Amino acid sequence: MEEAEIAAYENEVPVGAVLLIGDRVYRGHNRVIRDHDPTAHAEVVVIREAAKEVGNYRLTGSRLYVTLEPCIMCVGAIVQARIGRLVYGARDPRYGAIESMLKFCDLHINHKLDICSGSMEERSSALLKDFFQARR
Amino acid sequence: MEEAEIAAYENEVPVGAVLLIGDRVYRGHNRVIRDHDPTAHAEVVVIREAAKEVGNYRLTGSRLYVTLEPCIMCVGAIVQARIGRLVYGARDPRYGAIESMLKFCDLHINHKLDICSGSMEERSSALLKDFFQARR
Repeated sequence: MEEAEIAAYENEVPVGAVLLIGDRVYRGHNRVIRDHDPTAHAEVVVIREAAKEVGNYRLTGSRLYVTLEPCIMCVGAIVQARIGRLVYGARDPRYGAIESMLKFCDLHINHKLDICSGSMEERSSALLKDFFQARR
Repeated sequence: MEEAEIAAYENEVPVGAVLLIGDRVYRGHNRVIRDHDPTAHAEVVVIREAAKEVGNYRLTGSRLYVTLEPCIMCVGAIVQARIGRLVYGARDPRYGAIESMLKFCDLHINHKLDICSGSMEERSSALLKDFFQARR
């Protein structure tokens, strides 16, 4: 949530993510506009940073926490990185690729991902709602 | 195809991509292992580079050529970048998210993408097949 708030402060869509690998913690937030990088969603930002530091493109057994249901790009990145557990907050009815626009279980992806949703859902949704209302 | 061949030479899964924005040409290939970056598929590599150079996370009207059908991560990146036209070579029956594992038209994505497949399909397939056979 703190990372999502930083994103909002930077006028980015407020989504934040934390990746845990053993006792190492990687934090990040959406940086699409700032970095001129359409792929720089919070999930991709932390995955990329962690993989670089660990020196391995596989982050097997790591746990990813994100304030919003991941889109298809991020679900793909999660699978590519072999992340073991995903916890997210708010649902994304339009772009979410876990239980909304797409259902992860329908994807026939050969990777076992533990999924838990609804964590701090209200705070995350409120932050996103306020952000988009203020922009309108 | 040349970029895919460079990837093979570097022991990366041989996929290459070219992105055209007006008269500017961006070339790239799969760099997942080399960069310790699970998101560094050829498509993401050229999208990221082009967006950074153009100074805009939207690459509206650009054209992406890739030797293999994009996976869900790359399809998501293509949509995020608002790429206008996608031309790809070989189908990817396992991970392809245009006509194989997923059908792009079933995704209900609010972005119009012109799609053309089968360009240099045989050369691209042969390169991938040889690469995986040699590794076994």
